[in-house]
Amino acid sequence: MKAEIISIGTELLLGHVVNSDAAIIGRELAALGLDVVNMQTVGDNPERLLDALSLAASRADIIITSGGLGPTDDDLTKTTVARFTGRELVQSQEALAMLREYFGSRLITPNQMNQALFPAGATILPNNVGTAPGCAVPFGENGFIILLPGPPSELTRMLEEAVRPFLLSLSDSVIHSINIRTFGIGEGAAASLISDLMQSANPTVAPYASRGEMFVRVTAKARTAEQAKHLAEPVIADIRRRLGDVIYGTDVDSLEEAVVRRLLAGRTSIATAESCTGGLLAKRITDVPGASEIFQLGLVTYSNQAKTDLLGISSLLLSEVGAVSPEVARAMAASVRKLAKSDIGIGITGIAGPFGGTPQKPVGLVYIALDCEKGCYLHKLEPLGRYLGREWVRERASGIALDMVRRLLDGLPVY
Amino acid sequence: MKAEIISIGTELLLGHVVNSDAAIIGRELAALGLDVVNMQTVGDNPERLLDALSLAASRADIIITSGGLGPTDDDLTKTTVARFTGRELVQSQEALAMLREYFGSRLITPNQMNQALFPAGATILPNNVGTAPGCAVPFGENGFIILLPGPPSELTRMLEEAVRPFLLSLSDSVIHSINIRTFGIGEGAAASLISDLMQSANPTVAPYASRGEMFVRVTAKARTAEQAKHLAEPVIADIRRRLGDVIYGTDVDSLEEAVVRRLLAGRTSIATAESCTGGLLAKRITDVPGASEIFQLGLVTYSNQAKTDLLGISSLLLSEVGAVSPEVARAMAASVRKLAKSDIGIGITGIAGPFGGTPQKPVGLVYIALDCEKGCYLHKLEPLGRYLGREWVRERASGIALDMVRRLLDGLPVY
Repeated sequence: MKAEIISIGTELLLGHVVNSDAAIIGRELAALGLDVVNMQTVGDNPERLLDALSLAASRADIIITSGGLGPTDDDLTKTTVARFTGRELVQSQEALAMLREYFGSRLITPNQMNQALFPAGATILPNNVGTAPGCAVPFGENGFIILLPGPPSELTRMLEEAVRPFLLSLSDSVIHSINIRTFGIGEGAAASLISDLMQSANPTVAPYASRGEMFVRVTAKARTAEQAKHLAEPVIADIRRRLGDVIYGTDVDSLEEAVVRRLLAGRTSIATAESCTGGLLAKRITDVPGASEIFQLGLVTYSNQAKTDLLGISSLLLSEVGAVSPEVARAMAASVRKLAKSDIGIGITGIAGPFGGTPQKPVGLVYIALDCEKGCYLHKLEPLGRYLGREWVRERASGIALDMVRRLLDGLPVY
Repeated sequence: MKAEIISIGTELLLGHVVNSDAAIIGRELAALGLDVVNMQTVGDNPERLLDALSLAASRADIIITSGGLGPTDDDLTKTTVARFTGRELVQSQEALAMLREYFGSRLITPNQMNQALFPAGATILPNNVGTAPGCAVPFGENGFIILLPGPPSELTRMLEEAVRPFLLSLSDSVIHSINIRTFGIGEGAAASLISDLMQSANPTVAPYASRGEMFVRVTAKARTAEQAKHLAEPVIADIRRRLGDVIYGTDVDSLEEAVVRRLLAGRTSIATAESCTGGLLAKRITDVPGASEIFQLGLVTYSNQAKTDLLGISSLLLSEVGAVSPEVARAMAASVRKLAKSDIGIGITGIAGPFGGTPQKPVGLVYIALDCEKGCYLHKLEPLGRYLGREWVRERASGIALDMVRRLLDGLPVY
């Protein structure tokens, strides 16, 4: 069955509000096995809403609207849907009872009372967290227009408590979706390794890039969750084979989460000494709840003085090879590891830019060292091509440090 | 001029990603005085994109698409727009040069090379933060279809650096836009102070919330830049009067930038000792280019051991009052200031959650101390109402620390 989502609100067109409702509804419909093929957004304007409804009705069986249901919205959506379906607005005894229950002994104002008016023949969908109930209005042969309120907190609850049961009887398939997350491979390179799989219709395979990382989404559709999973598994295994050890996880949200999970599992502790990343690595590690179990200490030794005072890096070494050097990165890693008595120490030193580069040490050059019982590993991040900005260099350098830890703990070559 | 936004990506229909692009574009177009009347979202499907383009072309002069511009096979936007406008895809020398610059000495794969293909006659829009340039393709009598990449970081930069100048060149008026940035006041409270000004058509006045902060955008439109500025000035002065000292700047991008500028101007140095924020404050300070002049040292003393070893906080104090206490926050601030020999020391200790709270010290409680020559100031961040998550608490606490520095340097009461 095909579905379409219509979001209503001038604030959405002006960009004052990000349309999270559409994503919330989209996710729910996909999980129910409905095919969402289009989304539209219109302002608080009955004529444009009418156009949007006509278009949606021409290509979808289920239309879900969000917004324009509250007491201050002039009942834009209900009035327009009534007009579109040729139905009258009538008072629903069921909705009236819900309203009375919500307000208890408080006075119900006339515009609040409008919330009990619905297109004739509509199924009322209760709202347990707000005043405005929703409804499902039949259209065409087997279609329904489902009207939901705009506030995401109300919408989310209603989708689960009222819309899902209503739609379940109409749907005959479910979706199973997995993200295969990688570090150290670009979207283009990954795509060229799996381009044949990307032609498949079920499961679908698509690469996505975000924050300097790349992940591949595999989505299967079947009659039952079990069958969908079964359909996805061989494809996931195939992608795993092709992409190899750049994959850091399939059930995690981020590289830092993957790393902290492994550190917690092995009771392995870590400490960091950062220069150009300025605390970003520590921040990413401590973004993960529970990180305090394995992270005791992070140093941001931004100046040479701090490197000498806190890490005991000799001023002779600093003046001979410079703060941005393999030697200093290694010394920072070893020294912070010793200071914190941790299993792993990380040292990062480089030039995030946009200033401070020289021909020998250009902006974007970063050394990342990992010190542990086995020895000290070093990664040189070199500026290739165009400088993508301070944030990119810092994000990349902290990502490399995390990936080095991941590779160490997974028993892979560290680089 | 009427505008329409088409967002492209199956991940949007499935709700895997919230469509922030549409809001970002909507806001920019509104600021430029364009009327956004519709938004559509379609999947990675050429036929449906063709339908969306036809519909948009029938009712808008400017169509902006986002998504489907990267190097992968399912990126069909350029091909479909070429088909829709009856143009061939040709290699752009300009775009090829941009690609070569981006990749430097690295190999450019064939699918990366596709990023230099554009519909014939298109104006190339440079992308300074990613590989895929955008373009503007003429359609109909005076229309343009503008193709932008999906990642919000690239989209935002391109809107400002490439799309705005392009659209301004089409119209005979110019825009002057100023963001009045605040910390410590909510969007609702600010809106109620300036609600009458928000009715004005030129300049327009609109409040925005982002990352726990609020800013007011004033946008004036006139024939010349001079006239637009002249139009905006009295309104900006009025808003300044009404909002008062919660305003931290009008020509800065962030609170950290405002603070680092003031520190640099006064040659005032700062050092940080963080517990629950885990390096986020150091990261925010060092996000600003040039911060190395005033920031020498940051400590992330996550464990009690680290607080004792590095900051000399007595284990007796830690066991008596607990790590999350005004006393420990003050001691952290004073100690890191002494250690770094800096003018200002910041100490932050608290419970970011979601675990680790007690009835006496609930999740969300954070103490922030600022130590300087004048004395030690303390802010208690209390959990009020619903817990908004670990990230919110950390963002808020680091923001309060920055704002305390700002207030100190501006000679305002510090709290």
